[in-house]
Amino acid sequence: MMIVPWLHVITPPVQKVDEVIRIAIEIADNVDFIHLRQKEWSARKLWEVIASCRHSGIPTQKWIINDRCDVAASTQVKGVQLAYHSLPCRVVRRMYPQLSVGVSVHNENEAAIAEQDGADYLLYGHLFETSCKSGVPGRGLGGLQACREVVDVPIIAIGGITPNHIMKVVLAGGSGVAVMSGIWNAESPGLAARAYREAVLSSAQYAVHERSYSRE
Amino acid sequence: MMIVPWLHVITPPVQKVDEVIRIAIEIADNVDFIHLRQKEWSARKLWEVIASCRHSGIPTQKWIINDRCDVAASTQVKGVQLAYHSLPCRVVRRMYPQLSVGVSVHNENEAAIAEQDGADYLLYGHLFETSCKSGVPGRGLGGLQACREVVDVPIIAIGGITPNHIMKVVLAGGSGVAVMSGIWNAESPGLAARAYREAVLSSAQYAVHERSYSRE
Repeated sequence: MMIVPWLHVITPPVQKVDEVIRIAIEIADNVDFIHLRQKEWSARKLWEVIASCRHSGIPTQKWIINDRCDVAASTQVKGVQLAYHSLPCRVVRRMYPQLSVGVSVHNENEAAIAEQDGADYLLYGHLFETSCKSGVPGRGLGGLQACREVVDVPIIAIGGITPNHIMKVVLAGGSGVAVMSGIWNAESPGLAARAYREAVLSSAQYAVHERSYSRE
Repeated sequence: MMIVPWLHVITPPVQKVDEVIRIAIEIADNVDFIHLRQKEWSARKLWEVIASCRHSGIPTQKWIINDRCDVAASTQVKGVQLAYHSLPCRVVRRMYPQLSVGVSVHNENEAAIAEQDGADYLLYGHLFETSCKSGVPGRGLGGLQACREVVDVPIIAIGGITPNHIMKVVLAGGSGVAVMSGIWNAESPGLAARAYREAVLSSAQYAVHERSYSRE
């Protein structure tokens, strides 16, 4: 069996509802998960967008909600993405067994703690310098490898990743990539998602090798 | 058995953590519930404050968390207070049977809907003009009575209520009062809470009569 690395997409800050729905519909078929990360949105607004998208044919399991476990659970999406300001992972893990729990980490210490706390996967970044974190140098593939050496859970890399980077990310032990502006702010988000999807598929054979290796 | 009307306290916006803990400790014995309503706080911060207060001797059942059902459930507090921007009441009611669910309403139509949706109590306001909603006239005791006529669930009145008003609120069908600045911003929140507490106790015999009457 071939393990295809994950392709996550994360919504950039301050989006309009219609825009989120439109782009989500455009990219859904070519990505594994879309993170609804709109910190300024109310619970009701998040809930309504997931409901609207379901009516438009996007399965609820395609979504990961940022921070709000109550919204994630009530919309029956795939999971919730936690950061340092969120409820503790071990608390969420116990309270919401039905949710996949992702934790954002920035180094191997945080990665090890998140794994102990029961995270289902880690979001590691930012990998390369990106316009979202302008002026802050990326942590690089070495940082990703360091995390891979201390944990067994899947690590999704984020930050300035283009389709051309994906093979390297996978060879460094990444279990997938998460993309924000590279897809969401592309001239055609649908075509961009397809380009990332193809790169992810091309890297799949290496993912099998690397992930087996790192878990031996 | 004498039914003593409820005394809820609601934290004003933009409080410091230390201040919230200090005042909560000062007033806890004389109030039924404290609503932690800090919209700008992260889930982690809300969670940590409830934990700190528990270590200081305030039972978790003394708290009602605004909007965040996940924080309310994970801290095992009494309940959650929902507004129009929150998850729908009927969704929360089903997902969190362990929480008391309060819904903020502004007229009898909203009250009737909230009751149908399974609200455990209503927060009705604002009753009198208050510095929190400066320039907006209060809905008055007539509005409270109108709500009382269409629903059976307890109605807590909020907005500019002083200890002297409580008897009238109870006679109009209120099952209790919620106070923000009258207690929280008082020179001595502890003494202010006690003054409200005494007024609530004095009105208790009328509460029995009114609540039985309105439910016949």
